[in-house]
Order: sequence, then structure tokens, then C-alpha cells
Amino acid sequence: MNKNRLEAFSDGVLAIIITIMVLELKTPEGTNFNALLKLFPIFISYVLSFIYVGIYWNNHHHMMHTVKKVTGGILWANLHLLFWLSLIPFATAWIGEHNFAPFPMFSYGFVLLMCGVAYNILQNQIIKTQGENSLLSKAVGKDFKGKISPVLYLVAILSTYYHEVFSGIIYILVALMWLIPDKRIEKIIDNE
Amino acid sequence: MNKNRLEAFSDGVLAIIITIMVLELKTPEGTNFNALLKLFPIFISYVLSFIYVGIYWNNHHHMMHTVKKVTGGILWANLHLLFWLSLIPFATAWIGEHNFAPFPMFSYGFVLLMCGVAYNILQNQIIKTQGENSLLSKAVGKDFKGKISPVLYLVAILSTYYHEVFSGIIYILVALMWLIPDKRIEKIIDNE
Amino acid sequence: MNKNRLEAFSDGVLAIIITIMVLELKTPEGTNFNALLKLFPIFISYVLSFIYVGIYWNNHHHMMHTVKKVTGGILWANLHLLFWLSLIPFATAWIGEHNFAPFPMFSYGFVLLMCGVAYNILQNQIIKTQGENSLLSKAVGKDFKGKISPVLYLVAILSTYYHEVFSGIIYILVALMWLIPDKRIEKIIDNE
Amino acid sequence: MNKNRLEAFSDGVLAIIITIMVLELKTPEGTNFNALLKLFPIFISYVLSFIYVGIYWNNHHHMMHTVKKVTGGILWANLHLLFWLSLIPFATAWIGEHNFAPFPMFSYGFVLLMCGVAYNILQNQIIKTQGENSLLSKAVGKDFKGKISPVLYLVAILSTYYHEVFSGIIYILVALMWLIPDKRIEKIIDNE
Repeated sequence: MNKNRLEAFSDGVLAIIITIMVLELKTPEGTNFNALLKLFPIFISYVLSFIYVGIYWNNHHHMMHTVKKVTGGILWANLHLLFWLSLIPFATAWIGEHNFAPFPMFSYGFVLLMCGVAYNILQNQIIKTQGENSLLSKAVGKDFKGKISPVLYLVAILSTYYHEVFSGIIYILVALMWLIPDKRIEKIIDNE
Repeated sequence: MNKNRLEAFSDGVLAIIITIMVLELKTPEGTNFNALLKLFPIFISYVLSFIYVGIYWNNHHHMMHTVKKVTGGILWANLHLLFWLSLIPFATAWIGEHNFAPFPMFSYGFVLLMCGVAYNILQNQIIKTQGENSLLSKAVGKDFKGKISPVLYLVAILSTYYHEVFSGIIYILVALMWLIPDKRIEKIIDNE
Repeated sequence: MNKNRLEAFSDGVLAIIITIMVLELKTPEGTNFNALLKLFPIFISYVLSFIYVGIYWNNHHHMMHTVKKVTGGILWANLHLLFWLSLIPFATAWIGEHNFAPFPMFSYGFVLLMCGVAYNILQNQIIKTQGENSLLSKAVGKDFKGKISPVLYLVAILSTYYHEVFSGIIYILVALMWLIPDKRIEKIIDNE
Repeated sequence: MNKNRLEAFSDGVLAIIITIMVLELKTPEGTNFNALLKLFPIFISYVLSFIYVGIYWNNHHHMMHTVKKVTGGILWANLHLLFWLSLIPFATAWIGEHNFAPFPMFSYGFVLLMCGVAYNILQNQIIKTQGENSLLSKAVGKDFKGKISPVLYLVAILSTYYHEVFSGIIYILVALMWLIPDKRIEKIIDNE
């Protein structure tokens, strides 16, 4: 059972997800700077979500690199992850079109949280197939970023009760934290 | 004649089909929970169709695994399958936007039925090319799920005459039946 | 210079072209059979164009099979072909939404004609690179279908002056002619 | 770390970018030549942007050909390039729908400029990984076209202050300059 098609299909879905978000940037009604400026919240939400989908693609790429055998469990855990990722354009459009209002920000965080949960389920499925001594198992052993992210999403979601700006700051911080490339898996592979 | 491009093209079409359905989830007009709640029927229909397309991708992946030689017949049977699958987003939007009304539910079942028929035509084309003793031929020999599905779709279609809720339940049950990964082909390949 | 990426990119564009046409099938306004029936012209134009794009994908697949070296000329001739193919969804929507009116039918034929011309340019670029004794050169030597198609498109375009139904019949006949799988290239490859 | 998935993902995004631009060509309201003629500015802007995305795909294809090891830096520089390229459909729609008005033409040039900058960043990341004696490093040594393009974009952007027609001419000239296939990398690879 080869993993090429799993990667190709995931790449296709991720490429579409990342690109349909730009359809939210509708043509401005006027032809001056002010007309463009009105799109600023939508643009900002696009940048943030583009980075998040990029992070998932990047991590997915690294994680799949360690997979040797694709089981039914991995296939469906992967589709489950793609399902939640496919809701990012929806949540992105909502926060962008409504100036980062509290409940849309809450929902955006919820989608990110579910993406994180789905990513962990996929990771566990892969480790289950490969055994506890696998490359991936070692790599995620001290997975600080993977463990702290869902906690931060939860804090962000709850913080929308006080002010949505807190959640916005947390979403940006988590993205920045992940932008730093994940050296863990690369290192262990190099050491083998 | 290699099968890589057939798989790549099918993956591309399936990835787009699965992702354009999410475009139906239009941005809510308000920013509260009630505004989101109005999208619930569209969300439910999206989840159901996402699972169906996922099942087709999964089974297509398994079936193509047994193909060695791509003939013109297989190419066109595959395009025929993709045609009916491409109508799933349309039928999904219709049932979602009109609260699962009887005739849209009838049409949704009809599209699923035609997808099932097209899948069987493709399967027969592959078996015809490979001979009766092929891996796939053995695998589908006792293909209970493949044989019962069209019957269940037909029952679901007809049941919309009495109440659309019956068809809804059947669509969910068939999806659940297929979610259980198809071990048949995997087993026979392992035994070879 | 490898051809895999050329094929992958072309497959991606063709997969998107074939799938965005289905976006024209907008959700019916009602929930009965009459509401669905109104979409019939759009559905018919979708079926026809789906077959045309399928034919191009199929033939492209066969033709690329004979390519060994991708030159700049082949790259751009391929992009030129994709450009004209990308206009098929536009022409399809126009004839479907306006009940096959004469000028849209004229335009549809023009797009098909330009696709055919672009396909021939790509074919010539490939033959030029491979020499007159190449597989492809032999295969297209007696290329009856390739030579008669542009003539038929021209006749169809001009016939819209009298009645658009003539052009419609010709578009269907050309599609049927191509649906018969192209055995020429397959045969010569097998004979080598 | 293999580059196949990086190429596949980039191809997917580029294929979608190039194809969603055609969605701007909305069905004409009438069925005569005048109705079609109204779309002429949108069509022209589509042709121009199609060529630009084609150029980027072509050059990306050549540049990636020289990459042996994909680092985190290359991954993110590539995503950064895709981000700016994904804004081309937006800028294209704006100039097309507003008859090439000055500020949209300014913005179109800005997006092209940023694409050029992002392309150079990616190029530098690749050279950094491969060392100063790499194939790519030699190839871009006298990279006249790569160095003059950003300057020309800047001139075009500033020229919109006087008249937008100047910027339009420059955008066309830069596209034509790049249409001539880049023989540099091909040559050096052949000489090795």
C-alpha cells in the first residue's frame, strides 16, 4: 500500500484550501486606496490562515516522511484532518468580513483546535502502526509545540468572552511559534 | 500505458469535488450563535457527502492498486465515474439549502446510485482486462457491500415518497457500513 | 528535463477545468421536478463539455506518453493549449444559460476550434523535437480524426448563421467520433 | 527530504491560481457580439496574467530542477512565493473590471513586484543551501532578466502617476521578455 497517492490527494486538498481563501478578496468597488483599505481585515485573516495551512502542509510533509505502510486507520485519520482543515476558509471568511467579532473569533479558534486534535489522532495512528520505537515516536516524545498548541487554542477560545483581541494575539503567537521549522524529525533521521 | 496519471487526475478531481462543497458554507450574516446555527443543515449535508467522497477515494485507491494495464475502456469508465461524483456537490447543496426536502433527497439518492453503478462498470472493465483469476476478481467475488449498496440506494430513493427521513437514515447507514475499511483486497494481496 | 511535472500541472489544470463547470449547476430555487428541469440546458452543455475535456485529457495522456525530452517550445505550446481549454467552462456556461442561442453556439465552436489548433501546434512541437521518424510522427501520419475535426468545427461555426441546431449536432458528432479510443498510438507502440 | 511533494504542491496551487482567474469571465448578459465585447478588458487582463503565471511555473520548474535537498528555508520561501502569486487573480480582476484604472494598475504592479522579490528570496535560499559553486548559482550569475524585471515593475508602478497606459505597456514588455525561454540553466546543465 503506497503513500504517494495519500500525499498527492492531501496536497491537492491543501492546495485548494489555501487558494479558495483568496476568493474572499472580492474586487473592491472603487478604484482608489480607500476601496482597497476596506479589504484590510479580510487580507489580514487571509495571511494568518495561509500561514496556518502552510504550517499544516509543512508538518504533514515531515510526518508522512516517516510513514512506511498506509493502513485504513491512517487513511481515515488523514481524511478527518482534511475535513477540519477544509473549514478554515469558512472561519477565515467569517472573521475577516465581520472585523474579528468575538463569536467568529471563538469559532475560528474552535476550528484550529479541532485541526490540532485531528493532527494528533493521525500522529497516533501512524505511531500505532510503526511501534513505539519508530522515528516518529521518538520525534514527538518531547513534542512541546504539539502539546502546548491545543492548550493555547483553548485559552484563546475562552478569552473571547473578555475581549476578542486576546484570542487574535494568541492565534498570531501560535503561528509564529510553528513558523520556526521543526528540526526534531530532521535531526533524528540524520542521526539514524 | 501507466496508471500514475489516471490516479493523479482522479485525485485532482476528487480533491476539488470534496473542497468545492465547502464553498456552500457561506459566511453567516450575523456574528452570533444563531447565525451559525442556520447553516446546520448545510453543514450536516457537507459532512455526509465528505464521507461519501472519502469512501470513493479510499475504494478507488484500493481498486487501482490492482490495475496493471490501463486500457481505453478503463480510462473512460473512470471518467464516467468522475462525472457522477462531480454531481455530488450539486445534490449536496440542494438538500442542505432546502432542509432535506423530499425531491432533493430523491435526487441525492439518484446521484449516489449512479456513482455506485459507475463504480461497478469501472470494476468490471478492470476485471475484463485482467481476467477472471485476477486479484480484483477474487476480492469482489463475495462483495457484499458492493452488491447491497445500490439496493439500499433504491430503497432510499423510493422511501422519499413516504417520508424523506427514511432516505436520510439509509444514506447515513450506507456511509457507516463503508467507513469500516475494506479488508478484502488487502487480505488477498497479503496472501499472494 | 523531465515530463512528470508537465503532466502533473496539465492534469491539475484539466481537473479544475472539468470540475468548475459543475459550479454552473446552481441550486434550483424550488424543491420539485420542474425546478430541476429548468437546469436541463445547463446540464446538457455540462455533459458535452465534460466529454470534450475528457477527450483532450485522454489524447494528451497518449501524446505525452511518446515525449522523451521536454523543450521550452513544448512547455509553451502546452500552456497555450491549456489557455484555450480554460475558456471551455466560460463558453459552456454561455450556451447553457441562454438555451443554445446562435452567437453563444458560434463562440463555443470557436473555442473548440482554437483548442484543436493549439493541440496541433503542441503535436508539431513534439514531432519537431523527436524527428520525423518518431513514434508520434508515424501515429499522426494518417490522423484522419485530427484533420477532420477543425473542418467540422468550422462548418459548425458557420452553420449557426442558418440554425444553431446544426452546430449542436456537429459538436455531438465530433465528440462521439473521438470517444472511440485512439488505437493508433497504442498499436505502433505495441509493434515496436 | 524529497522535492517531489514541494513541486506537486506548487503545481497544484499554480494550477488553481491560473484557473480561478477564468471565473472572472462571467457569462455575458446578452447573446450577441456586443455582450461579449464588454468582457474584452477582463479577457485581456486574463491573457496577461495567464502568461505571467505560466512564466513563473516555467521558471519554477527550471529552478527546482537544480535543487537536491529541500530545507525548511526553501519550503517557507516557496510558500511565500505562492502567497504573492495567489494575489494575482485578485489584482487581475481589479484591473479587468475597472478598465485598467490607475490605482488598480499600481496595485497589479505591486503584486508583480512582490512576486519577483519572493522569487529572488527563494533563489537565494536554494543557492545558500547548495553553495556558491552550484549550477543555479552559475546560471543566475549574469541573470539580466531577473535583475531588470523588478526595476521595470517599479518604473511601471510609478508611471501610473502620469498615465496608466505606460504601466500597461511595461507589463506587456516584461512578459514578452520572459516568454523567450530561459536557456541559461539548460545550457549549463548540458555542459556539465
